[in-house]
Amino acid sequence: MKEMPSVIDSEVFLAFSTYATIVVLKMMLMSPMTGYFRLTRKAFANQEDTSLASSTEDKKKMVRVDPDVERVRRCHQNDLENIIPFVVIGLLYTLTGPDLSTALLHFRVFVVSRLFHTVAYVLPLRQPSRAVAFLTGLVTTSSMAYRVLITALYL
Amino acid sequence: MKEMPSVIDSEVFLAFSTYATIVVLKMMLMSPMTGYFRLTRKAFANQEDTSLASSTEDKKKMVRVDPDVERVRRCHQNDLENIIPFVVIGLLYTLTGPDLSTALLHFRVFVVSRLFHTVAYVLPLRQPSRAVAFLTGLVTTSSMAYRVLITALYL
Amino acid sequence: MKEMPSVIDSEVFLAFSTYATIVVLKMMLMSPMTGYFRLTRKAFANQEDTSLASSTEDKKKMVRVDPDVERVRRCHQNDLENIIPFVVIGLLYTLTGPDLSTALLHFRVFVVSRLFHTVAYVLPLRQPSRAVAFLTGLVTTSSMAYRVLITALYL
Repeated sequence: MKEMPSVIDSEVFLAFSTYATIVVLKMMLMSPMTGYFRLTRKAFANQEDTSLASSTEDKKKMVRVDPDVERVRRCHQNDLENIIPFVVIGLLYTLTGPDLSTALLHFRVFVVSRLFHTVAYVLPLRQPSRAVAFLTGLVTTSSMAYRVLITALYL
Repeated sequence: MKEMPSVIDSEVFLAFSTYATIVVLKMMLMSPMTGYFRLTRKAFANQEDTSLASSTEDKKKMVRVDPDVERVRRCHQNDLENIIPFVVIGLLYTLTGPDLSTALLHFRVFVVSRLFHTVAYVLPLRQPSRAVAFLTGLVTTSSMAYRVLITALYL
Repeated sequence: MKEMPSVIDSEVFLAFSTYATIVVLKMMLMSPMTGYFRLTRKAFANQEDTSLASSTEDKKKMVRVDPDVERVRRCHQNDLENIIPFVVIGLLYTLTGPDLSTALLHFRVFVVSRLFHTVAYVLPLRQPSRAVAFLTGLVTTSSMAYRVLITALYL
């Protein structure tokens, strides 16, 4: 990676790239998981999708809402609402030049909290498992946002 | 913030960091707000969430759709659909090296329009309050996208 | 664009800026398209929105779910779930310093696949048109994520 400016070549930036990519890939996996549940539960959102799955059953009945599909979709939506803010604020946080160990702590806690959140949502685990996972991620992102604002405030 | 490349250390970038962080934090606040409405309206999306809230009422009845909860969720969804494009295009716009005063105008108008949008959606205010707030944000982001395309077009 | 660090001034970065802006603008267009279908189908999500559209019909009946509106909204949601990951991973991929021709191939395939996805969803076209468009985008983003992880892995 020659020709990189120093900040982008820093260890903190490499760590951010790695953890952001992992957690975004995890979020992207929710789409195939939704597809899997739609196929196995025979529950589709569009009339034209029913021909992909089957041609024997009543196709009209297959455009329906299924509780397992909706659970995966709520998990995906929660990822969008939490992982995207982490990526945006995490990038700005990385550019403030934090200590490597502090930055790694934030990135690791966030990614582990979201992996656990997915398991807790899809199985599901007893509450407050999912609530704790969600709040851990929220606090981690807020902590990075706090550093961005105290380091770079310019209103 | 030593070792920063000049563009990242610029006042425009500091301003972008500040306003992007503020508006993403505002978006993140919609999650706890949804939680607050779910608890007070006793309207949950998952069976396992009802034990967090209460053990006396009929738990089956608490997995239901509530109009106040749905209103906050629609506001959150509209944030995702508008604030994320602002952050992406705002970052690329910042890297095109705009005038500080022009950039600040874009960032401030967008952030104020989204704060007003949330107030107009949640209360709710009479239309066209929310429509004007929404369109103001859309035009601001589009104006930044226009500059990105005329400055950096490479197809 | 003087004072830019070399990576941000590179042709790969200019190409990323261009394609990311185009595909995010396409995503933003889904909001006005939803508004158009809501107005023509007289199907709104909020009571206060019905006064914008009409004062003659029964306003209560206009807060309803319409299949055409829901189709556009599902397309918009699919954009959020796929275009945002492309932008995040595409930016990190750009910073790994890929060949210009390889990068352009990724960006072009992704943007074309999403334009075709929208057409296939809204008309709608027969399956597997939309499924192929969706999977093409997913594979393109995954290919960029693979390069980010093998170039910059730092756990």
